[in-house]
Amino acid sequence: MTDTTAYDRLTARFARIATIDECASMLGWDAAAMMPPGGGTARGDQLAVLAGLSHAEVIVPQVADDLAAAEVAPPEDVWAAANLRLMRHAHTRATAVPADLVEARARANSHCEKVWREAKRTSDFALVRPHLAEVVKLVREQAAALAPALGLSPYDALMDGYQRGIGAADVASIFGAYESFLMEALPAAEERQARLPPPIEPAGPFPIPAQEAVCRLVSERMGLDFDHARLDRSAHPFSGGTRTDVRITTRYDAADYTQAVMAVIHETGHALYERGLPAARARQPVGEAAGMAIHESQSLIVEMQACRDDEYLSWLGRVLHRAFGGDAAPYQTENLGRVFRRVERGFIRVEADEMTYPAHVIMRFRLERALISGNLAVADLPGAWNDALRELLGIVPPDDAKGCLQDIHWYDGAFGYFPSYTLGAMSAAQLMAVAVDRVRGLRTAMGIGDLSPLIDWLRKQVHGRGSLLGFNDLLTEATGQALNPGFFQAHLRRRYLGG
Amino acid sequence: MTDTTAYDRLTARFARIATIDECASMLGWDAAAMMPPGGGTARGDQLAVLAGLSHAEVIVPQVADDLAAAEVAPPEDVWAAANLRLMRHAHTRATAVPADLVEARARANSHCEKVWREAKRTSDFALVRPHLAEVVKLVREQAAALAPALGLSPYDALMDGYQRGIGAADVASIFGAYESFLMEALPAAEERQARLPPPIEPAGPFPIPAQEAVCRLVSERMGLDFDHARLDRSAHPFSGGTRTDVRITTRYDAADYTQAVMAVIHETGHALYERGLPAARARQPVGEAAGMAIHESQSLIVEMQACRDDEYLSWLGRVLHRAFGGDAAPYQTENLGRVFRRVERGFIRVEADEMTYPAHVIMRFRLERALISGNLAVADLPGAWNDALRELLGIVPPDDAKGCLQDIHWYDGAFGYFPSYTLGAMSAAQLMAVAVDRVRGLRTAMGIGDLSPLIDWLRKQVHGRGSLLGFNDLLTEATGQALNPGFFQAHLRRRYLGG
Repeated sequence: MTDTTAYDRLTARFARIATIDECASMLGWDAAAMMPPGGGTARGDQLAVLAGLSHAEVIVPQVADDLAAAEVAPPEDVWAAANLRLMRHAHTRATAVPADLVEARARANSHCEKVWREAKRTSDFALVRPHLAEVVKLVREQAAALAPALGLSPYDALMDGYQRGIGAADVASIFGAYESFLMEALPAAEERQARLPPPIEPAGPFPIPAQEAVCRLVSERMGLDFDHARLDRSAHPFSGGTRTDVRITTRYDAADYTQAVMAVIHETGHALYERGLPAARARQPVGEAAGMAIHESQSLIVEMQACRDDEYLSWLGRVLHRAFGGDAAPYQTENLGRVFRRVERGFIRVEADEMTYPAHVIMRFRLERALISGNLAVADLPGAWNDALRELLGIVPPDDAKGCLQDIHWYDGAFGYFPSYTLGAMSAAQLMAVAVDRVRGLRTAMGIGDLSPLIDWLRKQVHGRGSLLGFNDLLTEATGQALNPGFFQAHLRRRYLGG
Repeated sequence: MTDTTAYDRLTARFARIATIDECASMLGWDAAAMMPPGGGTARGDQLAVLAGLSHAEVIVPQVADDLAAAEVAPPEDVWAAANLRLMRHAHTRATAVPADLVEARARANSHCEKVWREAKRTSDFALVRPHLAEVVKLVREQAAALAPALGLSPYDALMDGYQRGIGAADVASIFGAYESFLMEALPAAEERQARLPPPIEPAGPFPIPAQEAVCRLVSERMGLDFDHARLDRSAHPFSGGTRTDVRITTRYDAADYTQAVMAVIHETGHALYERGLPAARARQPVGEAAGMAIHESQSLIVEMQACRDDEYLSWLGRVLHRAFGGDAAPYQTENLGRVFRRVERGFIRVEADEMTYPAHVIMRFRLERALISGNLAVADLPGAWNDALRELLGIVPPDDAKGCLQDIHWYDGAFGYFPSYTLGAMSAAQLMAVAVDRVRGLRTAMGIGDLSPLIDWLRKQVHGRGSLLGFNDLLTEATGQALNPGFFQAHLRRRYLGG
């Protein structure tokens, strides 16, 4: 059975690749959460060597031979068949880009990112402009190399690196519709909000050990098992590690408990997804998460959908009041709702509320498509940025630090990633609407901080499916239809416009 | 210039190997200090893959070709020439052992170590006996494969894996002399100790945050730069990480501050050695530490030589009293001297004082040589252990948990390592005697917790030399003679017999 043997060799090799990638993931976590500053240079080398080793395993000629042999009679098992297709996909992506371009990109990205830190600090776009131009030039070359191999447009070939199963044409139409919705909904939401009393700010400080205890309790209650997880601190909250050993982080501010708690809820959503991936497919492409948009849907369904809902906030309020003491009024459900469900036009994407957040993504999507197609020159980015924000939110950033220098993504070479945030938010709304309809006891459990009915449903519909399905196929199986942005708009109308 | 090219290729390859090994070192630290229990299985796989990748890089035929080409006209630079010899040495060690034996050992060691944990818990040697027998059988095969390749006896070939430049014949003679010394010195020290007042135990508890602050201060004052280091907790204190990012750990007991502080001093000694390795030779064999005995000398020269001395204890006493408060008497120098300089016949190696510690090592050295030569059967180990301890210290452990099951070493396949502890202690005494004689201001600085004069001298004599020299050559360059156990005996006479 030559075919079986070839497939078995491939599964062994991809398990090895996944194990190397696990090492990189743990070291990435360490770099952000633990590493003293003096370790940075060596860590960069370590991660580069691991990336090289992982890449080398995918591109060896034996993989091409084994793929060809296995594809003669693909496995009948649906998981194995999908796994084989994903191996081919990984091999195609890895071999389409010449080695010298891979290296040139790594160097350019790393260098540009370093300069960007200084440029952002001093709000000096000119400083980083030539480096960003080099990064964009190389990304365009990469996209041009990937596109024919994948049978996709250059921009879609980049998007495919983050989320399979949806392309820029669909995204453009979905985003266009959202823009129209926003033009009407945002002023209405602001008007309604202005008629409500302003939220009462509880008197701080909120001691950090108490915040940590709340975060840990919230995360555990959501279903994260700390025999397979850690919660630590880092400059920017993130979720990392591996399926059996997830590492989430947050940051604490003694004057404001809200950021730490919401970040932990968000990262716990990511962590629960990883924990729920199919153990039987561990370390195989088909056992991995289905993509960055789906990943984001799993963080946002808890952070934005479940945990900002009155049921959940009634429980959270009691936990917060017990932890921080003082006057009870700021922790009452109605007030917490006004704290955690506020719309506000701002310059900064990562601080945006759920209604305006898509505006930040839409403009980045349009700008990066134009950069990749060559319709926008890097030199014209700051002006185009400010025009786009004015058009969508009616505001203009005071400087580039609060404008086109705010996000790391482009400066470290990540193009095609931004749409994932909003596709995730919209998927979360769609999944939640169906879950609320189908899962018994979901809201009652939320009222005691228990998300297990929701998570159990997601385990079946999303987590346990790994990468078996692409974006829209996964949503269709889980909800009966491909992405329908109507769910997200209905959610926002209900929450911010009163129905 | 073919030769230069071959050597350059080798340095690039060994840098890559060292970088892979750095990844393993960081993940090993994480496993002990950070990892949740559920991550253990995956971590084992990760470390096995990294070990395989590192090993594979050394044994590729290209290395043999490059070594042969480079050796035709070895580099003239003394560092490069030594580096080339060490590359050859690493290649010889890695290729001498067949791949299936390497794998069989990894499996047997890992399995035996697991069973040992249970056997130690229940003091049931019979449970682990067959597994240890398998480990010993495979170690003997390994030693037999290494011996002809290295031109050493089988046991020396094992020792060489931990410390180059000294063999069992020298060690046996040194240990024999120490045994004679001990027979006379230990009773005399006990008699003298019995005439002194017993140490006053300060009233605890010693809050763990206060202990942590003391440990950090002590370590920083010793010269460890926390921009390149971390101090964390683990079940067993150790020093890990990499040259530019060292990770030390300790454990805290609220009822007893002494263990945490002394462990941190010990591990800081190891860490300072790593930090002082020659940066210009980073990631090359010649830039690594000179071996485990030399490494232990660097931890013991601070823990046993410098920091248990009255000058240092006078400073440490003030720090401890400030941290823990209460009565000042227990923290006065004379009392601390009685706390930190006590001899006691005990069953447990890791709890032993510096005079009886070598007895624990001597018996293990003799027993493991007999196991490797085949003169001792695994089944006879418990009896032989008890006989040896009775002979050396006049005591017999109540059970095997406190006897031949106490150390992990043999059960995870480490044979030839034990002598390093005592060779390190003796080297530390020799180095300290010379440093005290040559370094101005050394004792004055110790009186304010500052070890920089000592460490600066060690940087030149030991740390900065990397692996340029083997054990005795390094000692000869630093102190004018090969290992002379007279220094250690003189130190013990001075400290425990009054001169």
